[in-house]
Amino acid sequence: MLFHVRMNVNLPHNLPQAEAADILAREKAYSQELQNSGKWRHIWRLAGQYANYSIFDVSDNAELHAILSGLPLFKFMEIEVTPLLRHPSSIRDNDS
Amino acid sequence: MLFHVRMNVNLPHNLPQAEAADILAREKAYSQELQNSGKWRHIWRLAGQYANYSIFDVSDNAELHAILSGLPLFKFMEIEVTPLLRHPSSIRDNDS
Amino acid sequence: MLFHVRMNVNLPHNLPQAEAADILAREKAYSQELQNSGKWRHIWRLAGQYANYSIFDVSDNAELHAILSGLPLFKFMEIEVTPLLRHPSSIRDNDS
Amino acid sequence: MLFHVRMNVNLPHNLPQAEAADILAREKAYSQELQNSGKWRHIWRLAGQYANYSIFDVSDNAELHAILSGLPLFKFMEIEVTPLLRHPSSIRDNDS
Amino acid sequence: MLFHVRMNVNLPHNLPQAEAADILAREKAYSQELQNSGKWRHIWRLAGQYANYSIFDVSDNAELHAILSGLPLFKFMEIEVTPLLRHPSSIRDNDS
Amino acid sequence: MLFHVRMNVNLPHNLPQAEAADILAREKAYSQELQNSGKWRHIWRLAGQYANYSIFDVSDNAELHAILSGLPLFKFMEIEVTPLLRHPSSIRDNDS
Amino acid sequence: MLFHVRMNVNLPHNLPQAEAADILAREKAYSQELQNSGKWRHIWRLAGQYANYSIFDVSDNAELHAILSGLPLFKFMEIEVTPLLRHPSSIRDNDS
Amino acid sequence: MLFHVRMNVNLPHNLPQAEAADILAREKAYSQELQNSGKWRHIWRLAGQYANYSIFDVSDNAELHAILSGLPLFKFMEIEVTPLLRHPSSIRDNDS
Amino acid sequence: MLFHVRMNVNLPHNLPQAEAADILAREKAYSQELQNSGKWRHIWRLAGQYANYSIFDVSDNAELHAILSGLPLFKFMEIEVTPLLRHPSSIRDNDS
Amino acid sequence: MLFHVRMNVNLPHNLPQAEAADILAREKAYSQELQNSGKWRHIWRLAGQYANYSIFDVSDNAELHAILSGLPLFKFMEIEVTPLLRHPSSIRDNDS
Repeated sequence: MLFHVRMNVNLPHNLPQAEAADILAREKAYSQELQNSGKWRHIWRLAGQYANYSIFDVSDNAELHAILSGLPLFKFMEIEVTPLLRHPSSIRDNDS
Repeated sequence: MLFHVRMNVNLPHNLPQAEAADILAREKAYSQELQNSGKWRHIWRLAGQYANYSIFDVSDNAELHAILSGLPLFKFMEIEVTPLLRHPSSIRDNDS
Repeated sequence: MLFHVRMNVNLPHNLPQAEAADILAREKAYSQELQNSGKWRHIWRLAGQYANYSIFDVSDNAELHAILSGLPLFKFMEIEVTPLLRHPSSIRDNDS
Repeated sequence: MLFHVRMNVNLPHNLPQAEAADILAREKAYSQELQNSGKWRHIWRLAGQYANYSIFDVSDNAELHAILSGLPLFKFMEIEVTPLLRHPSSIRDNDS
Repeated sequence: MLFHVRMNVNLPHNLPQAEAADILAREKAYSQELQNSGKWRHIWRLAGQYANYSIFDVSDNAELHAILSGLPLFKFMEIEVTPLLRHPSSIRDNDS
Repeated sequence: MLFHVRMNVNLPHNLPQAEAADILAREKAYSQELQNSGKWRHIWRLAGQYANYSIFDVSDNAELHAILSGLPLFKFMEIEVTPLLRHPSSIRDNDS
Repeated sequence: MLFHVRMNVNLPHNLPQAEAADILAREKAYSQELQNSGKWRHIWRLAGQYANYSIFDVSDNAELHAILSGLPLFKFMEIEVTPLLRHPSSIRDNDS
Repeated sequence: MLFHVRMNVNLPHNLPQAEAADILAREKAYSQELQNSGKWRHIWRLAGQYANYSIFDVSDNAELHAILSGLPLFKFMEIEVTPLLRHPSSIRDNDS
Repeated sequence: MLFHVRMNVNLPHNLPQAEAADILAREKAYSQELQNSGKWRHIWRLAGQYANYSIFDVSDNAELHAILSGLPLFKFMEIEVTPLLRHPSSIRDNDS
Repeated sequence: MLFHVRMNVNLPHNLPQAEAADILAREKAYSQELQNSGKWRHIWRLAGQYANYSIFDVSDNAELHAILSGLPLFKFMEIEVTPLLRHPSSIRDNDS
């Protein structure tokens, strides 16, 4: 089941650089592990923004929340979730 | 080059049914032709909305505009465009 | 899987009264059938508004969309969908 | 009498961890006591958000305010209240 | 129990004058009857606006909705409802 | 002359408790003195909000501003002012 | 007593030209009469907008409303009213 | 050439009192000098707000910016600029 | 003196095609004449929108308004005006 | 390929003056280097705002993002990006 997620990152200006670097490294590893598992299907950077659009493929709402609330950057993010489904004009069989 | 596009459709209530059916049929054909060409990479329905999120892969802004303004539903749509690029955490080589 | 849905109804002022009555009767029957099936778990009126908050229990996003887009009032509604899950402080076992 | 309440939690980033843990433990106990009493009828987590939708069943506006302003997290919350009533299409006898 | 209500009136420009006059006369009679009963405690015009702020004193949410949805102008109004209670700094004994 | 005022209070989280208590005590005394004088005609708490709706009866805009800017909580408040007048449907002789 | 008023004009596209011309002529005469009386102190066009900023000098809120609701264009306008007073840095003696 | 400017002041709560007093004294002197020169034509306080509406009469956009960015309070202000011109209904010869 | 202008076009769906074509032809001629004169310095289409960003170089606010209100599409447009000036980091001598 | 970019700068009040001066000097040098290269085609100050409108001419979305995220002020900016193309009424051959 697909979800569209927009994540905006707002790092506090006074966050110590070492702490920021540590969070960002963990964020990247976390994201790539989920991409490799197939649950985080797409991630795109928005030009000029510290933000991304992502597509998740999870079994239910609870799994989506577990993934998002586990993000190392979660407490610095503003997140918008939109449930998706196959579009009737899509040429694909499934909802991907 | 990728673009994220949100399209909201607002059909007037008093649009004659035959005219609506004709527009929608042309819209579907137009969309599927562009999907087959690889320029309209993804299209998803938003649950509960007469709206879609789409990803386009075009050569430049002008081609994107030519495609969108050519949509049979164009004059009934509200459209938001966001330029995308490869995210630094993406596991893919290209920007898809 | 639970979803929170807000529906605002905007009937055009010039809708013929017989047509409006017919739509509303079909809307009520449609809603009650889904309530009896267990898929439309709650429906509440907002005081002073031609609007409702509802809770749906469906198997996935596609089923939610099929139900909402099948509403006789669908084309006169503004709809907002929010995916829900069990709250960690809830005293209930499941997500209801 | 039913009320729909949305609560968004905004914990300051620099809140000491022990203080945060204490507030959250008291918040959970407070919520569960009210759920057991029947006054806090439902609480759901919004997927991807540090937020909940809740339904309260109280005798009047003053009781609702006493409950909400007594929340240990109250000063860190943004709260929206909507008075509800039985929907004319509801299959239930009371307003629940 | 008190409620604060804002009503904005949007009469369609092409409403026949006789129909408008009839609705407004019924609206005034309806309002004054409720003011005399004590349920519609205050009504004020906002300077420069076709709008009012009102205070209602009703037994519950359902009675408030019955009153508001019974307004002859209801279908031409945008309405906002806010539940009120006695303020801790108020010098009055009750919540009025 | 009547004015409708909405006041939202935003106390900083790190305001020392003694300072907060002092401000709140002065705020209450200030408000009650003005209520007793008849200039602050009504004050209601909004359910679930650290906010109030108030009605002031003052001789002109300047007096209203003098009262509001003299509030001990003024620098922590967001304030909205709406000039009121007697509604043509009101059953009262004056604008109260 | 001074008030700042913003008026936005939204003439329906299908308003017959003769009717529009008549309303506009009456609007201009009405405005100039009030300017001559000293009650409509200033009126400025906003560049690129069918809108004006105006300053009124009236005895109270009721007089302001009587003037504004008497505008021939009133039912085609969106109006915002802000009560003004002498600024403490002003070099003028009165509030003008 | 006239411009309408709205200035909202947001002084940080923890600004040392002596520093605030110094800025405000310089702001007042700066404003009065410009009022005396005829460039700052009007300044009004908004009732209940730490804000003003002002009218400037300057030779061009650059001069307006030089004046506004030179305000001692500039870095604590939110500013909105609207270019004005003579209204066709104005009884004055020039654009004042 | 430079101004940044955003124009959004909203043609009514039921505008007769011949009338629309006539307006658009006059709009294009009007725009090109002003571009040739140097007053309409730039005009760009926004991708996916029936809208443009334009830069005007005029002698004052009144000339800008005369140009904009003379647009054949004026009554179908939503327009936003922002006064510009030379940026201190610009490598150009004048404000272009 | 052209992009319209709005940049709003929000420097924290407590940023040490030397640090601010250093960032601003690097920002100016960075901007002028890009203007000289032809990639940053225009930059204008908005009157009364710590903000600019800019036009970039880059090969793709990724280059635009590289430039913007490399701005010394990037973490203090709010940025909006709009893809542009040649307007059909433009008298220029290319999209500039």
